[in-house]
Amino acid sequence: MTDTTNTPDRNRRPGRRVGSSNSRALILEAALDQFATTGYGRTSIRSIASAAEVDPSLITHFFGTKEGLLAESLSHLDRLPVRIRAALTRADPDKAETLARTYFGAWEDASLGPRLRALARAAAESPSAATVMREALETHIFTTLEANSTPRQFAHMQVAMSQLFGTAFARYILEIHPLADLGLEELVDHVAPILRSVFAEAESD
Amino acid sequence: MTDTTNTPDRNRRPGRRVGSSNSRALILEAALDQFATTGYGRTSIRSIASAAEVDPSLITHFFGTKEGLLAESLSHLDRLPVRIRAALTRADPDKAETLARTYFGAWEDASLGPRLRALARAAAESPSAATVMREALETHIFTTLEANSTPRQFAHMQVAMSQLFGTAFARYILEIHPLADLGLEELVDHVAPILRSVFAEAESD
Repeated sequence: MTDTTNTPDRNRRPGRRVGSSNSRALILEAALDQFATTGYGRTSIRSIASAAEVDPSLITHFFGTKEGLLAESLSHLDRLPVRIRAALTRADPDKAETLARTYFGAWEDASLGPRLRALARAAAESPSAATVMREALETHIFTTLEANSTPRQFAHMQVAMSQLFGTAFARYILEIHPLADLGLEELVDHVAPILRSVFAEAESD
Repeated sequence: MTDTTNTPDRNRRPGRRVGSSNSRALILEAALDQFATTGYGRTSIRSIASAAEVDPSLITHFFGTKEGLLAESLSHLDRLPVRIRAALTRADPDKAETLARTYFGAWEDASLGPRLRALARAAAESPSAATVMREALETHIFTTLEANSTPRQFAHMQVAMSQLFGTAFARYILEIHPLADLGLEELVDHVAPILRSVFAEAESD
């Protein structure tokens, strides 16, 4: 699949090396941009290749399918899953605030926010994207949590994460008022007591 | 927009009266079916007309735009918004259980469930559908709640509803395990304590 023909400019910028780790990053960047603007269902390998200025075969070489590309892009969220897992497993009294601030802070971040919206939209829109999202959550967050908790505690952690996601959906996708008008710290103040009660419930088991 | 030409069969079943309340119901039925199977973005007035066996102009006559059709279909959810509003404003100790059972029961209902999934997908996929959804929530649920609560209490109610939606998304759309494997009553047992703490927090204001 590597390009050894050295053909002159096929609509590529001079100096772009095909197959370099740079192309990989450019492809992921273009994919997330298109998932965010065009929607997952209407984005094609071909349109991503065109935006990243690489050959479509390079994308299939690196990532296999569009689902593979989505899976890979989920691990390029500025270490968000790692930060969430760390916040969930912290043993300190501000755990609820830290978790809420980490999660909503990411949705408000100028670069991460549009990507999280794109990924939520993709999962809602396409069953295969939902599968990719579920597997990413399992790999990056749930496996560790499950190993360190009882089944009831684990189900409670999932309920806590559902709380965060539902609030993000209402605030950043539906833009429901007044939820969408609160400042980040006000939002944390509303959500943290609920997360605390989830944690207390889990610890009482 | 009314058809006065009395042209013979234009692909309509004999005996179907154009403009009758029956056509209206058939159009809504076809729209919800297509939103559920094809997705909101890829459904057109023309494809709904074809499935309902009516002229496309009849759909624009009744509902205006595709957004209008979505708005109307939201009020055909077996009185779900009314039942949710009633559960939220009940003054009884089982309020949290009733609300959770009403809401998740609807997602598990053989006829309502696919429609709720279709509507959640539409809102995630299309900003104009998100606007329709937000306006429907305001009209059918939030206006009454807001009139009867302080701003902080109202924000708390929205957080409670976000909890329900987030859990439904994780369970019925992402199908995250073990959340997706719980029986309805087990699910109610997990979510009700959290709703109770939201209500307690709201009442303490």
